[in-house]
Amino acid sequence: MTEAAQTLDGWYSLHDFRTVDWTTWKMLPAEERQEIIQEFLGLVEKWNKTQAEKQGSHALYTIVGQKADFMMMILRPTMEELNEIETEFNKSRLAEYTIPAHSYVSVVELSNYLPAGEDPYQNPQVLARLYPELPKAKHVCFYPMDKRRQGEDNWYMLPMEDRRNMMRSHGMIGRQYAGKVKQIITGSVGFDDYEWGVTLFSDDVLQFKKLVYEMRFDEVSARYGEFGSFFVGNLLEEDRVSAFLNV
Amino acid sequence: MTEAAQTLDGWYSLHDFRTVDWTTWKMLPAEERQEIIQEFLGLVEKWNKTQAEKQGSHALYTIVGQKADFMMMILRPTMEELNEIETEFNKSRLAEYTIPAHSYVSVVELSNYLPAGEDPYQNPQVLARLYPELPKAKHVCFYPMDKRRQGEDNWYMLPMEDRRNMMRSHGMIGRQYAGKVKQIITGSVGFDDYEWGVTLFSDDVLQFKKLVYEMRFDEVSARYGEFGSFFVGNLLEEDRVSAFLNV
Amino acid sequence: MTEAAQTLDGWYSLHDFRTVDWTTWKMLPAEERQEIIQEFLGLVEKWNKTQAEKQGSHALYTIVGQKADFMMMILRPTMEELNEIETEFNKSRLAEYTIPAHSYVSVVELSNYLPAGEDPYQNPQVLARLYPELPKAKHVCFYPMDKRRQGEDNWYMLPMEDRRNMMRSHGMIGRQYAGKVKQIITGSVGFDDYEWGVTLFSDDVLQFKKLVYEMRFDEVSARYGEFGSFFVGNLLEEDRVSAFLNV
Amino acid sequence: MTEAAQTLDGWYSLHDFRTVDWTTWKMLPAEERQEIIQEFLGLVEKWNKTQAEKQGSHALYTIVGQKADFMMMILRPTMEELNEIETEFNKSRLAEYTIPAHSYVSVVELSNYLPAGEDPYQNPQVLARLYPELPKAKHVCFYPMDKRRQGEDNWYMLPMEDRRNMMRSHGMIGRQYAGKVKQIITGSVGFDDYEWGVTLFSDDVLQFKKLVYEMRFDEVSARYGEFGSFFVGNLLEEDRVSAFLNV
Amino acid sequence: MTEAAQTLDGWYSLHDFRTVDWTTWKMLPAEERQEIIQEFLGLVEKWNKTQAEKQGSHALYTIVGQKADFMMMILRPTMEELNEIETEFNKSRLAEYTIPAHSYVSVVELSNYLPAGEDPYQNPQVLARLYPELPKAKHVCFYPMDKRRQGEDNWYMLPMEDRRNMMRSHGMIGRQYAGKVKQIITGSVGFDDYEWGVTLFSDDVLQFKKLVYEMRFDEVSARYGEFGSFFVGNLLEEDRVSAFLNV
Repeated sequence: MTEAAQTLDGWYSLHDFRTVDWTTWKMLPAEERQEIIQEFLGLVEKWNKTQAEKQGSHALYTIVGQKADFMMMILRPTMEELNEIETEFNKSRLAEYTIPAHSYVSVVELSNYLPAGEDPYQNPQVLARLYPELPKAKHVCFYPMDKRRQGEDNWYMLPMEDRRNMMRSHGMIGRQYAGKVKQIITGSVGFDDYEWGVTLFSDDVLQFKKLVYEMRFDEVSARYGEFGSFFVGNLLEEDRVSAFLNV
Repeated sequence: MTEAAQTLDGWYSLHDFRTVDWTTWKMLPAEERQEIIQEFLGLVEKWNKTQAEKQGSHALYTIVGQKADFMMMILRPTMEELNEIETEFNKSRLAEYTIPAHSYVSVVELSNYLPAGEDPYQNPQVLARLYPELPKAKHVCFYPMDKRRQGEDNWYMLPMEDRRNMMRSHGMIGRQYAGKVKQIITGSVGFDDYEWGVTLFSDDVLQFKKLVYEMRFDEVSARYGEFGSFFVGNLLEEDRVSAFLNV
Repeated sequence: MTEAAQTLDGWYSLHDFRTVDWTTWKMLPAEERQEIIQEFLGLVEKWNKTQAEKQGSHALYTIVGQKADFMMMILRPTMEELNEIETEFNKSRLAEYTIPAHSYVSVVELSNYLPAGEDPYQNPQVLARLYPELPKAKHVCFYPMDKRRQGEDNWYMLPMEDRRNMMRSHGMIGRQYAGKVKQIITGSVGFDDYEWGVTLFSDDVLQFKKLVYEMRFDEVSARYGEFGSFFVGNLLEEDRVSAFLNV
Repeated sequence: MTEAAQTLDGWYSLHDFRTVDWTTWKMLPAEERQEIIQEFLGLVEKWNKTQAEKQGSHALYTIVGQKADFMMMILRPTMEELNEIETEFNKSRLAEYTIPAHSYVSVVELSNYLPAGEDPYQNPQVLARLYPELPKAKHVCFYPMDKRRQGEDNWYMLPMEDRRNMMRSHGMIGRQYAGKVKQIITGSVGFDDYEWGVTLFSDDVLQFKKLVYEMRFDEVSARYGEFGSFFVGNLLEEDRVSAFLNV
Repeated sequence: MTEAAQTLDGWYSLHDFRTVDWTTWKMLPAEERQEIIQEFLGLVEKWNKTQAEKQGSHALYTIVGQKADFMMMILRPTMEELNEIETEFNKSRLAEYTIPAHSYVSVVELSNYLPAGEDPYQNPQVLARLYPELPKAKHVCFYPMDKRRQGEDNWYMLPMEDRRNMMRSHGMIGRQYAGKVKQIITGSVGFDDYEWGVTLFSDDVLQFKKLVYEMRFDEVSARYGEFGSFFVGNLLEEDRVSAFLNV
């Protein structure tokens, strides 16, 4: 057996994508729509409070194209809290006018293909990455991925040393985008259909393409990356929710 | 022809995943919803009785993410009983407010890549594993899997001895999680689309990720494992059913 | 070009899987439901008559899991008759309360990877297999399959002699299940998405798993078999139709 | 770069598969259904006129199994005409009671892996094949296909000479079915998801299976063929349309 | 790591495919349908104005076959504008009578596998290609594609020089179609499920087939191209919108 990579795990994560059923939404009286929007903003307000108390974080983005109309990304200390938030939204009045489009269940993960030594859970930088406050960047990009296990291209059969070297080189590309793109890796082995989710945040949407494309020429992606669907979107600030849903 | 592995087979198993149609559910008067919940709890009560009589077992979990809202896992001595339970649920009033999301048909299986000798069906430990009472663990993880038959990576073309050795090493990983994760393997060759279902139970949801990820570096999974969709969920105790369905 | 296998072809076959829309079915007055059931049993009665006249055969099974609620398997001398039966069912009142779940179009087939000589169409045993009366076994298993054409594992590029030897060894496994499992092979090249359909009948549902699993270690399946979805079910005798549909 | 095969291209082709929504269709008063059938037969009458003027052709078949209830195959000189016919059907009253099931857009194609010399567009036999009147055969078979580009089995990397030889041998098989099966090849590179559509016509439905199966042992199909879904059906003559739709 | 190709990026692009729900559309009073068409033409008028100001471009085509009824292709300087246009359409009255069929999010891209030297963003020809006015050609063809990463056929593991040479040869084919086919490449790495979208415009629909087929024999496509769904359509000029939607 090959030596398994060790991971550090932080908050649990739910990406929840929804499509708006505009036709039935428009049938409502304007006043009722306002009440429903207020109810939804009340949920967001609760999430804001949790975030202020550093007990979780969340992000709200509209999605470009027909895959979804908006995404809620939620981080929490337990799987039960994610389930409760999801169910609370499902029971809300806004949910009656949305259609589930996609979701992803994972946990914030740091992979320590890194030099050993210190206890990473004592490292404030590590903790800030395991329990992050999601940035209010203008754009988001989400995609799930696997490491390939196919014929000669089998990541899980490689010696630890080779994997470590490739991941280090891979990390170098990411570091070139420091300040331009913030990347949150979430692990989903045992939780959802791919092994990882990648969530990117940037004020310049073109940086997503540049970063992912550059990485694709790196051996880790070129030979060993398998990618799922890509979602791209724009920040939906709370004060824009009403305008977004206004019909 | 390669020597086929022998299996021991216990109770038949149905994993039945459902999504709640919250919109129509909310349209019902509160009183009617209560009646429907009571009818459903009546079904569960019958299942409890069967379980107490050791004629089967069952588990009830909510599922995180959009794949489903809850799962019923049912074990019974015959395929006919599974069919009856499924149909009884389908005819229940709660079923009118749920949408089938996924299901899996299989049978509890022990694979004897083990030293021969005794009659396993006389072994009380074996019997306890073939006819298990499902634990009330806080979390569940379910996924189906195949052994790969692809080019050089063809499990079914390997000599028995190689398969036995690999399975033994694989079992060692599982044993490290003893006390943390309970694993129930169900065979589904001839019954459903994958060859096996894996159902994991744990009080610590992170152990699912650790176990499945560690196993993925083991040759059996790395070279020969093909995985279907993963479902993860939280225990839904009977006294929480009302709260879960309360709107 | 490789020498093609010759086939003997009997009755045309339609596997027609349906899901019951229990919610709308329950909305009907009990009396109306009874009328609809009687209309359906009238269809079955016609099929019984055809079967008694040896002009076809049919089988009715409930299906376990969410893939379908029941299956009608119909054998007839012509494709037109299958089409008429299907359309007659579609126009029936019961069809208003069912949803098409899956179907498979094929023809009963015997593959003569067998010693040549006699005219097989004169052989009563062959005729009994080409124009079979479907057994009233307690359980059914259906799955479609292809022979693989992939890289080194290309069935259709093998010499006839190799294919014949492998099929003979494969047939030996089947023969060990004589008396336990009855197997009907239907060919679907040019008719449906896989090359064959396999329908197994047994009074012991576990034999399906044993047979298919044992065969999977045989080179024909291990290297050359590609399998579609598996359906498993329980005999639905006519006198149980009312109970099955009773709500 | 490998030398590309030259093609001759005739009429554009639309295969339009529809499922009848029998439940809503049955809700109509008989008289209204008759009007709708007459309106549809009026469309067919227009197509007949076009066919008589040799400005196109069409065929109408019922389909066996749940993939569709009937298929309209339409040939026309321009893509615009196909679009108009499709839209005219979509706006017809019958379309309100049908559900789109599948479609295929292509152009009648002859591939000249043939000796060069004469101008094929001057050859009356070639013209008859590029602008064919579709036969009123009892049965139809339709499937789309690709030439494989996978590892060692890459059709598009083969020298022209090898492709020509293989296609010639392939054509020999087809010629053995002359008089039994009429084959129309339509090219769909750039128009639809596969590279070709194959439409077979025969009065003996079993010939489809024999032809496609025999070809599968030919290297062109065995190593280089990738097949989509197969549809099989029975001729729907205009005087049978009323009976087919009668409920 | 292999050297990544550099790209030049222009306007963001949304391909938005819709199916008309003719049944509900026909239920509307003629007058109301006219109002709705006028509202939609008002949107198009706004897009025309933007195009006249060279702040974007758009194209409107009907699609042949059941994949969609029409496509709107929109180019804009920012992802936010695409999102707004999409949402504005979704809130329009016409959207109530259409069903999302497919969409694609990308950005106009020029890949500089070209000799270096000058600043391409200063080159008027380059700028005209990055910020193009979409032509009013009679026909459109759209498909997404990937460069393959599979075993020996891994584009992203090739040296820059090899990729450059292959792309140059590939470009030569394209150039032979100059004047016949206009091609717009949009990059979608990080934005949508494939790496590129290809949109072709021509007054002769057969040129799409010729171009794509000829390219398929070129090594870049033969060994390294992976293609998604193909859509083909006819120009929908504004003065034909009413006729198209007239029922």
